[in-house]
Amino acid sequence: MQKDGIYESMPGVGRHEVIIETPEHGRSLAWLDVKQVEQVLLAYRDRYLSLRQDSRLKYILIFRNHGKVAGASLEHAHSQLIATPIIPQQAWLKIKGIERYQEYYQRCVYCDIIQQELDDGERIVAMNSSFLSFAPYASRYPFETWIVPKERNAHFVNISPAQIRELAAILKETLLRLDLCLDDPPYNYMLLTTDFTDNFHWHIEIIPRLSIAAGFELGTGIHINVVAPEQAASYLRQVKLEAA
Amino acid sequence: MQKDGIYESMPGVGRHEVIIETPEHGRSLAWLDVKQVEQVLLAYRDRYLSLRQDSRLKYILIFRNHGKVAGASLEHAHSQLIATPIIPQQAWLKIKGIERYQEYYQRCVYCDIIQQELDDGERIVAMNSSFLSFAPYASRYPFETWIVPKERNAHFVNISPAQIRELAAILKETLLRLDLCLDDPPYNYMLLTTDFTDNFHWHIEIIPRLSIAAGFELGTGIHINVVAPEQAASYLRQVKLEAA
Repeated sequence: MQKDGIYESMPGVGRHEVIIETPEHGRSLAWLDVKQVEQVLLAYRDRYLSLRQDSRLKYILIFRNHGKVAGASLEHAHSQLIATPIIPQQAWLKIKGIERYQEYYQRCVYCDIIQQELDDGERIVAMNSSFLSFAPYASRYPFETWIVPKERNAHFVNISPAQIRELAAILKETLLRLDLCLDDPPYNYMLLTTDFTDNFHWHIEIIPRLSIAAGFELGTGIHINVVAPEQAASYLRQVKLEAA
Repeated sequence: MQKDGIYESMPGVGRHEVIIETPEHGRSLAWLDVKQVEQVLLAYRDRYLSLRQDSRLKYILIFRNHGKVAGASLEHAHSQLIATPIIPQQAWLKIKGIERYQEYYQRCVYCDIIQQELDDGERIVAMNSSFLSFAPYASRYPFETWIVPKERNAHFVNISPAQIRELAAILKETLLRLDLCLDDPPYNYMLLTTDFTDNFHWHIEIIPRLSIAAGFELGTGIHINVVAPEQAASYLRQVKLEAA
């Protein structure tokens, strides 16, 4: 619309890929073998590595929609990747927040969150030597769960083969706990990582879609969450996994 | 969580009010007399004027949720008002955007949008001497519709009695066109105004909830919209109102 000045036109370039997770129709990621989940994560990494070579693409988001209420239009288990020619506002805001925190405290906010969660303990959902899965202190959504690598790294694609195995294990366990606790709830997850700055700490945000963002949320960006994260984590920890 | 430094604790104060629009259960705002819609708008203004006197409240959002999918938990027609002790991120981002545009162009972005819409014409839904109702050029949602006063004013509460009557008429007409065109769709609307700066142009954003924000939208803030605003406005203009 604006032809002159600060709002330049956006190049009409991007990528959209679908990552099919299993040949078995109707089997969801939570119920795949850890080995298969590992293959899915390796596919994420491979596609990311390939697409980042295209300098026209400024941002790559890998995400998953599960269930109709979460916007899944296909039933067969799949993840998606969308690459955009701009840095999206959400990514930019997150990075600016990390920078502000860093300037003030000289520390990484995600590293501080991990330390806080390990100290408190009551919001932890699962853990292994490389990753922590927890209900964040300021959860926006009921049963919102994050998976964060304990060691800081800006870039998901730097993940080692050993870490991929651990990520597969904790991702499967977290999704299975959500599935069993909430009877296969609709959810989205986003793998948040970045190429354009080293000042980041990549992580996965899982958002179960149990509530509806209405006028207040749309107008303010403030979320009303009726489930305390301590309560959500406690329910998720109590799930018995033997049967699964 | 943070006890020292930039992230101070937020005061636990706020207001939440419900504005009942009619004694008739099951009659929605689109189907009230214009005179009654005017009374609803006067109630918005009165409650805003009253609450702004409380200096602990920094922001007041008036909004409406219609239909279950849009998060309406009560069936009886009502609007809501929530006042917060902070300026929400969405409001802050909008104001910063207006400021950036103003610095660069020395003009109000909403005034420019109105001029552009009047020049183009094809996204206009309804109009009277004080207000324009249109499908914005960069609509985020299918059939997203904004109602903007033609004359710039930062503060909704400065509205004159004559303008209240015109706003009632165009709001009713717009909601009725949406109702008849899309068979009573769920929607949210937000009345966006501000007290803490004069550099604003108050307006109403109506968001029909016809699509689902999934992983891509949650992760990036970029919205995929499958209905061109020109198409949406054309459908809305074609609605025959005689029967209503």
